[in-house]
Amino acid sequence: QRARDYNITIGVLPTGKWNAITDVPGVKVGHTTLIEGETVRTGVTAILPHAGNIFQEKVPAAIYIGNGFGKLAGISQVQELGNLETPIILTNTLSVPMGIQGTVKYTLDLPGNENVRSVNAVVGETNDGGLNDIRGMHITENHVIKAIQGAQSGPVTEGNVGAGTGTIAFGFKGGIGTSSRRIPETLGGYTVGVLVQSNFGGNLTIAGAPIGQELNRYPFRSAIEKSDGSCMIVVLTDAPLDARQLERLAKRAMLGLAKTGGIASNGSGDYVVAASTAENMRIAYQTAHTTDTGNVLRNDNISPLFMAAIEATEEAIINSLIAAKRMEGNGRTIEALPMDKVLPLLKKYGVTR
Amino acid sequence: QRARDYNITIGVLPTGKWNAITDVPGVKVGHTTLIEGETVRTGVTAILPHAGNIFQEKVPAAIYIGNGFGKLAGISQVQELGNLETPIILTNTLSVPMGIQGTVKYTLDLPGNENVRSVNAVVGETNDGGLNDIRGMHITENHVIKAIQGAQSGPVTEGNVGAGTGTIAFGFKGGIGTSSRRIPETLGGYTVGVLVQSNFGGNLTIAGAPIGQELNRYPFRSAIEKSDGSCMIVVLTDAPLDARQLERLAKRAMLGLAKTGGIASNGSGDYVVAASTAENMRIAYQTAHTTDTGNVLRNDNISPLFMAAIEATEEAIINSLIAAKRMEGNGRTIEALPMDKVLPLLKKYGVTR
Amino acid sequence: QRARDYNITIGVLPTGKWNAITDVPGVKVGHTTLIEGETVRTGVTAILPHAGNIFQEKVPAAIYIGNGFGKLAGISQVQELGNLETPIILTNTLSVPMGIQGTVKYTLDLPGNENVRSVNAVVGETNDGGLNDIRGMHITENHVIKAIQGAQSGPVTEGNVGAGTGTIAFGFKGGIGTSSRRIPETLGGYTVGVLVQSNFGGNLTIAGAPIGQELNRYPFRSAIEKSDGSCMIVVLTDAPLDARQLERLAKRAMLGLAKTGGIASNGSGDYVVAASTAENMRIAYQTAHTTDTGNVLRNDNISPLFMAAIEATEEAIINSLIAAKRMEGNGRTIEALPMDKVLPLLKKYGVTR
Amino acid sequence: QRARDYNITIGVLPTGKWNAITDVPGVKVGHTTLIEGETVRTGVTAILPHAGNIFQEKVPAAIYIGNGFGKLAGISQVQELGNLETPIILTNTLSVPMGIQGTVKYTLDLPGNENVRSVNAVVGETNDGGLNDIRGMHITENHVIKAIQGAQSGPVTEGNVGAGTGTIAFGFKGGIGTSSRRIPETLGGYTVGVLVQSNFGGNLTIAGAPIGQELNRYPFRSAIEKSDGSCMIVVLTDAPLDARQLERLAKRAMLGLAKTGGIASNGSGDYVVAASTAENMRIAYQTAHTTDTGNVLRNDNISPLFMAAIEATEEAIINSLIAAKRMEGNGRTIEALPMDKVLPLLKKYGVTR
Repeated sequence: QRARDYNITIGVLPTGKWNAITDVPGVKVGHTTLIEGETVRTGVTAILPHAGNIFQEKVPAAIYIGNGFGKLAGISQVQELGNLETPIILTNTLSVPMGIQGTVKYTLDLPGNENVRSVNAVVGETNDGGLNDIRGMHITENHVIKAIQGAQSGPVTEGNVGAGTGTIAFGFKGGIGTSSRRIPETLGGYTVGVLVQSNFGGNLTIAGAPIGQELNRYPFRSAIEKSDGSCMIVVLTDAPLDARQLERLAKRAMLGLAKTGGIASNGSGDYVVAASTAENMRIAYQTAHTTDTGNVLRNDNISPLFMAAIEATEEAIINSLIAAKRMEGNGRTIEALPMDKVLPLLKKYGVTR
Repeated sequence: QRARDYNITIGVLPTGKWNAITDVPGVKVGHTTLIEGETVRTGVTAILPHAGNIFQEKVPAAIYIGNGFGKLAGISQVQELGNLETPIILTNTLSVPMGIQGTVKYTLDLPGNENVRSVNAVVGETNDGGLNDIRGMHITENHVIKAIQGAQSGPVTEGNVGAGTGTIAFGFKGGIGTSSRRIPETLGGYTVGVLVQSNFGGNLTIAGAPIGQELNRYPFRSAIEKSDGSCMIVVLTDAPLDARQLERLAKRAMLGLAKTGGIASNGSGDYVVAASTAENMRIAYQTAHTTDTGNVLRNDNISPLFMAAIEATEEAIINSLIAAKRMEGNGRTIEALPMDKVLPLLKKYGVTR
Repeated sequence: QRARDYNITIGVLPTGKWNAITDVPGVKVGHTTLIEGETVRTGVTAILPHAGNIFQEKVPAAIYIGNGFGKLAGISQVQELGNLETPIILTNTLSVPMGIQGTVKYTLDLPGNENVRSVNAVVGETNDGGLNDIRGMHITENHVIKAIQGAQSGPVTEGNVGAGTGTIAFGFKGGIGTSSRRIPETLGGYTVGVLVQSNFGGNLTIAGAPIGQELNRYPFRSAIEKSDGSCMIVVLTDAPLDARQLERLAKRAMLGLAKTGGIASNGSGDYVVAASTAENMRIAYQTAHTTDTGNVLRNDNISPLFMAAIEATEEAIINSLIAAKRMEGNGRTIEALPMDKVLPLLKKYGVTR
Repeated sequence: QRARDYNITIGVLPTGKWNAITDVPGVKVGHTTLIEGETVRTGVTAILPHAGNIFQEKVPAAIYIGNGFGKLAGISQVQELGNLETPIILTNTLSVPMGIQGTVKYTLDLPGNENVRSVNAVVGETNDGGLNDIRGMHITENHVIKAIQGAQSGPVTEGNVGAGTGTIAFGFKGGIGTSSRRIPETLGGYTVGVLVQSNFGGNLTIAGAPIGQELNRYPFRSAIEKSDGSCMIVVLTDAPLDARQLERLAKRAMLGLAKTGGIASNGSGDYVVAASTAENMRIAYQTAHTTDTGNVLRNDNISPLFMAAIEATEEAIINSLIAAKRMEGNGRTIEALPMDKVLPLLKKYGVTR
């Protein structure tokens, strides 16, 4: 079930075909889900900006840090060179090293990369230590490679899957969510797709309705809440944006998070990785040319993409909550968002009829 | 009239006494309003973090840039040294030089500053060129000095006043707005106050209700809207925060802007200036000591302040719209937010009963 | 007199024809010098990246801040949009407002700019308050416009001229200096030109020779030196670099400053403005296109430009010191670098034969 | 052998007792060196800011990125929270994951950390793929733990040791180097210590003497040199600096690198990690207090520390070159800096008598 299955509409722009990050042409998503015994509730999600050898055909990229209490790997090289050379990997906090290791090995082993000696893996994380035995470090490099190799286009599984298997959001079960927006043909007809790993807190708001408040679940009434979580956000687009513009686009995703009631609390690791899949913007690893020719979107034309990123991020987060089911793990139980209580509230607040 | 006069409640935290930036002890606000002839609709707003000689008793400060299409002066020194040494001035885009000039002269002339040869004025702006003859550069340094010298504590005039005299937001008349929040005593009992100069666009949302959409006023249905405006946001608090923490606080104000439907469009200059008025954090210009002793709030205790900044920013923007009245100027008329249409919508969406 | 007139060679790359920033095709430099009475020793220097209407034909640009104790105007818009839309102006600290005002008026008055209502002036400064009555604010907007309008290609006057009229470096008279480098044809044949306004301290080193130490002039033997000055650095190139790459280039200028013995002390405002004059990289203010096509230099080919920027910055600073003559002003006298003592030291240290 | 053994003096400030990073009280350094068979030439170096449980007693810290073509882990959390919670680890590029893994396991296993579920490991690297079979990923987490556990105070082994085992600088064998400076008692009497892992290129300069040029070894005469390396720099001090000030201190280390002839080329990963070991600045992981009290050095008193960091970085790099011996590995031989040729040149250029 997704937000739109309940007639919850977020924003004004139309979605893409799947209402998923995979609406951006060429994009693939893969999950490895680990649910083992009483304590292992974790996984890996891989997002591929295109189906080729990403190291050989890098894409313009940027990383924006909403709040930096996190361990996302690969930041500085993306920011310095303005490009991404691996799939984007999401996992749990203490499995970032295996995330890097798996991504590096995957890259080194690709045909054509026999002499590569440097790989900048982009690996994000949130802390699923509430439901998962995170100190056990159960993710292996093979789990990561499997997520990459199993990546597919088309609909994306949401909720308790991949890196979202053990996450918690707004006190309910969080997880993976996705959404997309398509801007009008007269404005370029570009698609913006977003995928999130939701694991954060705040005052839950769905399409404007103050659900957290109505359910009497929101923070800071009298005590400081600890371990308040994180949100990883991936924004892809086929619009021809360069690294500077992608950083601007990434920044807008945090505005979408805000609309769900997120506050980017002290303990939150809120990161946005943005990349352009536009074919004319690819950066070849090796080439005889000394310059790259690109048709970069003018600054003046970028605002509709900003609105698209905001709307798709908001909806991706809500989708992650709606898709995620009750989960027990590590001696704790986290309930799903109680749609039986939420739906009447959405009606009360005019979100649905 | 303000949002709460219409029973519009934003967020969950209580406001301070005046629901204004002046709820932070010692803070003063002054306006110079210029409405002259057919074409002059502009002004200056000054915000003073304390009543003393700010150059001699600097305050910890930070500036966060939501979107940098703007001319705010004073950025780099605040970021390098982590402090603010003048009142914060807001005005129109082309009057930034007079804003600096007035602030510098005011500072040089203060008793005790006879030998000062360097002053870092912080002067923000939005473009009121729709209603105001901005190319005429009608602000003088005396207008600036007058706003500083006339600053007062207590209630703050909102709407078409000072730097908000000629601004436009969401297609309606914008202006100056303010709000405050007080966090629970058990969490420190600190106050966060916000003042905004609203001059931006997006998809207007009031306490979650999709007003822009209902009024059929929102951007990017088929054309790129130009000159989409800006928002200046000032966040003050008596919590003992250092410059690094104030930057984090400033960043949250943009999440409040997001909740009003702002998208930080390409042409927007969205800046947040944050400062701590805590007396034990003051930085003396000259002293015999080589170290400064401060009791800085621990990172772990900062999240309630983040939520306060988000809520107060959202409400300050809505207050600016509600307070601002219809304005004619420079051959153009901008209507006030039509509360007769808005109030039934707020009821429909459960914001009010 | 310049460094090379004394057979002082800095670095390994060849210079351009004039060994000046004007070796970058199309670049012009203009000065307004104010030496009046006993106390006025200041001025304005304007650097134009091309001879056209810069607002209508913007150039890719970046600003890097070596140390931010300064008031350079225009930072955030350059960083957000990645371009420069005015001449670059240098002046004294308290004349930044007139620097902006003059640049804005110059821009508004250009044919074709009749409807322009927003101008981002880039105005840098150093504090010449040692030799100049800086509190008197003697620069007017007309001095600024005159510097722009009088700008010329070809050789650049150095030393006590324009914004360098009253500056002090390493305890000697500083001022304006310039230099250029040309990288080999096989590496692109591009030119990098640098212009500096030197007003900072440290342990003066000329082409590796420890002059400050030999002259017994260097800081921090027992006391904290105050007001230790600043350095403005402008780096222009005809290489087709985008904003991200120009920021990287700008960063290297500080490495050149380091080689002169500069330490970027606490009180220093060390800013580098970098721009590309490559014609295919111009950004039209208005156009029917939604994308811009550029042939951007690949990251892999940028390192020789870095070395060129380092060498040219080092030499520009040394040129500023050698050109500047003894100056009296404001009740103080600052001697020129004593070449009679320096030349034997350069010989001793193998810099010259 | 070290620079001072050859009477090479760099800068004007006195060194600490060991002329090493360990002159900062409490600091320890440990190495694991891997020289196995024909192809393994790599290792790990660990720097501990104090001898206690760093996770429980964090230190103020900052990371500055000179050029970001690198994979240093831990950046964003240090920048967001302003502190360091693990030893600083240096290793090779593709062993960053094992560097993190080892550091995390070391931390999780410390008494008192039984419930810790999030660790921000700071792991830097340079690419030793010229002399080492880097694709073989020969570093294990135990190598990392061993380097941490074997860390010692007192003299530091330099050259082909730990993370410097396989590195190359200026075309000669590079490696680990260290140096320190002590500022006058009247200025605070603080110590600044630096440790580097040198693996970069440029135009080698020793105390001002143009050695690279004289040896006819410098880049960009006609071709683009590839894989031009990186430099990791660690700066520690007992001065009471906060995170903002430490970022400023870190930035100065790049000025020291510049004086050795480094250019921070495109392919360079030049990172500076800075931390304060001042006891009154420690940040307890858990405490009943809501504020931390610190005596932070005033900005006005920081410049001598800047000069100390510049001098110590320059000397640490030169020390790394002088200490490193000829190395064969992975089918390649890299000669040591030929001191028989260098010493006469140093005499010619007045560096030594």
